[in-house]
Amino acid sequence: MRYLILAEGFSGDPHYGKTMWGVLRYRGEDVAAILDSTRAGEETLGVPVFGALEEALALGPDTALVGVATQGGRFPPAWIELLKRCIEAGLDVENGLHVFLADDPELKELAARHGSELRDLRRPPRDLSTATGANLDVPATIVLTVGSDCAIGKMTVSLELDLEARRRGIRSVFVPTGQTGMAIAGWGIAVDAVVADFIAGAAERLVVEGRERGGDLLWVEGQGSLIHPIYSGVTLGLYHGSAPHLLVLCHESGRDEIEGAGGGPHPIPPLRDLVELHERMALPARPARVVAVALNTRRLDDDAAREAVREAERETGLPASDPVRFGAGPLVDAVLAASGR
Amino acid sequence: MRYLILAEGFSGDPHYGKTMWGVLRYRGEDVAAILDSTRAGEETLGVPVFGALEEALALGPDTALVGVATQGGRFPPAWIELLKRCIEAGLDVENGLHVFLADDPELKELAARHGSELRDLRRPPRDLSTATGANLDVPATIVLTVGSDCAIGKMTVSLELDLEARRRGIRSVFVPTGQTGMAIAGWGIAVDAVVADFIAGAAERLVVEGRERGGDLLWVEGQGSLIHPIYSGVTLGLYHGSAPHLLVLCHESGRDEIEGAGGGPHPIPPLRDLVELHERMALPARPARVVAVALNTRRLDDDAAREAVREAERETGLPASDPVRFGAGPLVDAVLAASGR
Repeated sequence: MRYLILAEGFSGDPHYGKTMWGVLRYRGEDVAAILDSTRAGEETLGVPVFGALEEALALGPDTALVGVATQGGRFPPAWIELLKRCIEAGLDVENGLHVFLADDPELKELAARHGSELRDLRRPPRDLSTATGANLDVPATIVLTVGSDCAIGKMTVSLELDLEARRRGIRSVFVPTGQTGMAIAGWGIAVDAVVADFIAGAAERLVVEGRERGGDLLWVEGQGSLIHPIYSGVTLGLYHGSAPHLLVLCHESGRDEIEGAGGGPHPIPPLRDLVELHERMALPARPARVVAVALNTRRLDDDAAREAVREAERETGLPASDPVRFGAGPLVDAVLAASGR
Repeated sequence: MRYLILAEGFSGDPHYGKTMWGVLRYRGEDVAAILDSTRAGEETLGVPVFGALEEALALGPDTALVGVATQGGRFPPAWIELLKRCIEAGLDVENGLHVFLADDPELKELAARHGSELRDLRRPPRDLSTATGANLDVPATIVLTVGSDCAIGKMTVSLELDLEARRRGIRSVFVPTGQTGMAIAGWGIAVDAVVADFIAGAAERLVVEGRERGGDLLWVEGQGSLIHPIYSGVTLGLYHGSAPHLLVLCHESGRDEIEGAGGGPHPIPPLRDLVELHERMALPARPARVVAVALNTRRLDDDAAREAVREAERETGLPASDPVRFGAGPLVDAVLAASGR
């Protein structure tokens, strides 16, 4: 796959465009170009940014990826026009928004005519159902990332720990549960988009498939937070449905309130309380332990980051690290020790 | 509305057909007839059972209600035939299954031709979105039923407490969150059928609407259980989204494991642990207290039921009752005392 990332107006904003940044960081070798007329001629992580579609097409992409969230999650007319031009150029389109491209009769017809595939990453599989208990029979060690808020790096932690485990020769598989993880790994289910009754069923199916893909060690991408006023339902359904043996608790240093939830204040409790809460919410049929803390220290300088890691270790009695800044080694060590490997 | 309840093969089974029984018990005055060829000539809760549609039509129903869950939640050919005959007779159809009648082109066309409305109770409103925090601004006392398992009577408890509160002259509103509650009350959203990201948003919308319908006291129908391996996500999303001030803990006496979840064992912890767990899972922005225990004592004789109520009170230190067997008075007393009325 050769991606053209559609990111008009946002290709340079590191806090916006989770899908674009995730794909650039973890699948950058598959990205041919970025389209953003506001930064034509520049680069993002070494990938050239173009202002005109025709120029970007010269680099031979085969798939246009909607890389940023649009206003209100809908596609305004300018986006629809751009998508049509991509389809007419023979590109497939991948989209991670809640609104589905293939539900637009005009785009669908155009895609059929040009032999282009519209892949709506968040569209649930047709045959989803409720969980069955098969999650408890998966012969692999299942590790779920959980955390104090959304958008603090749970996906990144799962990806980094998977990379480190594979470097060590372990049969390790990243299990994608959201649109960005799916764009990176090429499979998965966006559990936040399934019918509510089927959240655990979707999570169960994902760990079963992770095992079928050869994983002895499955890193399930976490979603939301048990203490998030908006998304906690998805978080708990994913937790119980993926039936993890081990948890890695993720937190962004310096964040002390849930962000963007409305109606607060929604304070984030101390890490030791979060450890206890998550272990408490495991089901008796599959007890789960928090075995490490992954900190996102992006707002801190190096010294402060190192101190934050030490403080997290002191507070929880668990190994901690910022896997992006200081390496995933200590976290993988902790998981392997706890899994008896 | 005059209901004809479609319940082929199951109209006499008290443990099957939650929608039929709920509507018979709480809206029985609106039920004209039941259709079940295996019990033609009998009665259920005073409503006549017919074997032939034509006989039932003579009683003048205007709406056919799918009263039982079909095999696998789909409509086999015999059901489709029956639904077509109902539509041809000019009846509207209400359906609470996950499969939607209006998605069947043939039924849809037939209904349009006969001026019949197909109401799929579980179809989410088109404009649902994530929660906003408006739940925290609803100027009413919000009471959610929570419990140890599915199908133990949370809806019944909410309905009984609402009835008792209204008897006392309180502006009290039952807030339906599932298909049976919706069939009974004539409004609501089936929160288990919405997109997972929107569970809390749907719950929030329901308490806002409950207030708009004049409620000073809102009884939100609970769903599932925080400790249910399949449905816990719906439960937590409904909990955080409905932002209750007070909780009524529901339990079926004698049930010590979650039923029908697969992959167990899934033991139910002691009531005092469930009280603590539910209070623990409230968000800081809206602390919630369990103020009463509602027991379903249907498996016990009168003496054992009374002893179970006393034991629940001893164990939790909270007022307890089986509101169906012994009346909802003590539970409503507890809620009013806690709400400062």
